[in-house]
Amino acid sequence: RINGDRLWESLMEMAKIGPGVAGGNNRQTLTDEDKQGRALFQRWCEEAGLTMGVDQMGTMFMTRQGTDPDALPVYVGSHLDTQPTGGKYDGVLGVLAGLEVVRSLNDLGIKTRHPIVVTNWTNEEGARFAPAMLASGVFAGVIPLEHAYARTDMDGKTFGDELNRIGWVGDEEVGARKMHAYFEYHIEQGPILEAEDKQIGVVTHCQGLWWLEFTLSGKEAHTGSTPMTMRVNAGLAMARIMEMVQEVAMAAQPGAVGGVGQVKFTPNSRNVLPAKVMFTVDIRSPDIEKLNRMRAEIEKRAAEICAEIGVGCAVEAIGHFDPVTFDPTLVGRVRAAAERLGYSHMNVISGAGHDACWAAKVAPATMIMCPCVDGLSHNEAEEISKDWATAGADVLFHAVVETAGV
Amino acid sequence: RINGDRLWESLMEMAKIGPGVAGGNNRQTLTDEDKQGRALFQRWCEEAGLTMGVDQMGTMFMTRQGTDPDALPVYVGSHLDTQPTGGKYDGVLGVLAGLEVVRSLNDLGIKTRHPIVVTNWTNEEGARFAPAMLASGVFAGVIPLEHAYARTDMDGKTFGDELNRIGWVGDEEVGARKMHAYFEYHIEQGPILEAEDKQIGVVTHCQGLWWLEFTLSGKEAHTGSTPMTMRVNAGLAMARIMEMVQEVAMAAQPGAVGGVGQVKFTPNSRNVLPAKVMFTVDIRSPDIEKLNRMRAEIEKRAAEICAEIGVGCAVEAIGHFDPVTFDPTLVGRVRAAAERLGYSHMNVISGAGHDACWAAKVAPATMIMCPCVDGLSHNEAEEISKDWATAGADVLFHAVVETAGV
Ligand SMILES: NC(=O)NCCC(=O)O
Ligand SMILES: NC(=O)NCCC(=O)O
Repeated sequence: RINGDRLWESLMEMAKIGPGVAGGNNRQTLTDEDKQGRALFQRWCEEAGLTMGVDQMGTMFMTRQGTDPDALPVYVGSHLDTQPTGGKYDGVLGVLAGLEVVRSLNDLGIKTRHPIVVTNWTNEEGARFAPAMLASGVFAGVIPLEHAYARTDMDGKTFGDELNRIGWVGDEEVGARKMHAYFEYHIEQGPILEAEDKQIGVVTHCQGLWWLEFTLSGKEAHTGSTPMTMRVNAGLAMARIMEMVQEVAMAAQPGAVGGVGQVKFTPNSRNVLPAKVMFTVDIRSPDIEKLNRMRAEIEKRAAEICAEIGVGCAVEAIGHFDPVTFDPTLVGRVRAAAERLGYSHMNVISGAGHDACWAAKVAPATMIMCPCVDGLSHNEAEEISKDWATAGADVLFHAVVETAGV
Repeated sequence: RINGDRLWESLMEMAKIGPGVAGGNNRQTLTDEDKQGRALFQRWCEEAGLTMGVDQMGTMFMTRQGTDPDALPVYVGSHLDTQPTGGKYDGVLGVLAGLEVVRSLNDLGIKTRHPIVVTNWTNEEGARFAPAMLASGVFAGVIPLEHAYARTDMDGKTFGDELNRIGWVGDEEVGARKMHAYFEYHIEQGPILEAEDKQIGVVTHCQGLWWLEFTLSGKEAHTGSTPMTMRVNAGLAMARIMEMVQEVAMAAQPGAVGGVGQVKFTPNSRNVLPAKVMFTVDIRSPDIEKLNRMRAEIEKRAAEICAEIGVGCAVEAIGHFDPVTFDPTLVGRVRAAAERLGYSHMNVISGAGHDACWAAKVAPATMIMCPCVDGLSHNEAEEISKDWATAGADVLFHAVVETAGV
């Protein structure tokens, strides 16, 4: 079993970097806070005897050597970046539990046949730069490196420039590494495990996603002196599309979600009907047919809504992954470990996207989940207990060691 | 008649300060650009022999002496500040036409009995600091000076600090001046005059306004892993309120408008359901009963919409003025001047708010309007012709001189 107290202390230590305003964290990717978080993680890894590799996306690969020079490494990863108002565990738990696996192996003097590589993927959240899971997407060969470098944040800064600014452009070609297996341990971010009173989620699938960025063009005009009949109101079109997205998601129940997280009005002045309205729609389902039908229906109905008002409507798909089925052998190994350790468990489908989804494209991959209070995540109030954190890390330890061989 | 070429040249010269991105202006109140605009106007006024007074709200009063030391001044005013994406004429035309009246009087060697005071009111637009017409509102005794000073912009900077920063805190007590009459010349900002092919709008009334700032509190949560049934979606509540505002405004036709110009999501991240949604509703009508009924209905139905979703709903009225009836004597004088000068004219109701609305509280006041292309304003593409500008300035000249006495 791993050392739950040590894991918890590391979590609390990392949470001191980039504190939020309500007990959580704001350590968005490629900020100075991200840089500090990386430095702390690097120090801890080096103290545990790991050696670092960094790729051109800034992803950190911290290697514990194996006994067999020909054996491919077992990867254990997640991310240290957070949402602007993120929790202390989303991503961080998976990275620091990976480190805890290594620390425990060191304590026990266990050597594994395959190397173990603890991984911190760059920009998992996609909050500052869309899409989410950007570095693992490049790693899996799904997103071109140049596309990733050119992504811009709200201030127009590019991913490439910001990665360079914080000094984390590595020299490894992205995706050159080959993986024997990939494990990711994460908080559930949903309510099922807590409701079902289970300690461990055995993650069999991950639902697919589309991020659609809408740009509506209206006629910028005075809110007071422009008659209702002369308005080309892009804000009204947005409101109708938001309601329609809700309808489409509700009609697709069960097994689908849809919502809007980001909105920008231009010029955003109280007495000006907007010239431009930008907003993003996030739809997901584990069923690829349903997911793509939702997208098609939303785009069709949005075009109708805009045409009726006379508003211009452009849609760009800025994020996407298909639903994922995780590797049955690794999934079985996770389930068996939970069983062996005496932890209650159940199968779950990940509602959120994870780097494991891209890793699954290039290696056998799976995930382990622990509950979180009220299913709450992407909220500074995100919370888990030390016992929950420990149980999942124990399962991770067993599954990884079994896969890496002793 | 005034010198239309000189007026037009001054308009084009002022438009060079704080250029926009699409041919208009971004010279928002209390910015460095506003400061430059004020300096240019001050220089022109001093060259025309006017003496300056500045009150504690930064409003500029440029006086041409009259022959009767006991006669109260006739004020001619408007504003030099613009929207973030504003036109070259909204407000500026009224201030520079006031200057042109004085320049023409100088050319003709005419002395008036009453002094004439060309006025540049601070923060008419209300884009940076709500409400609109802030300085004239303080002048009219409707808004306390301390309230005005404490207003904040999107960056949290206060009106008081910014006024001080640009060096325009005057020493005159706000509202201490007494007015014999107040005239304001402005572009229509609506489509009626152009559609009716009239050169002059004789402004008999101004419609009333409410600005309602809504702050909705939702449950910040992950867009992917939070089931539809567990969402407390403040963005959805906003969408429904926006649609409802449209309905209420349409049901109040004719003679009412309603819309939303400003929206802010927090944290505004693509994969986070918002913790907080702020937006502003702008409703107007010349009928005070109807206006207040609209407000009551919007607040009631918004509360119901939010209650249904479970979203918290706070509403603050951050801007208000009752419908205004302008002084019949001055209105008649404007109409007679248009008639005498051979300009086509019609009565209009101002759809936008103006400093004249507050001046009307403390003095006989009225307005003159000229058409603008497509009724477009609060848009960089706002356009008028030199002939339109000249006709209204001629009418202003006649009405002011008649009121000031020769
Ligand atoms: N786990 C997680 O929150 N990832 C961010 C990408 C997503 O929106 O699912
Ligand atoms: N004239 C004008 O655009 N004033 C701004 C205040 C308003 O929104 O009516």
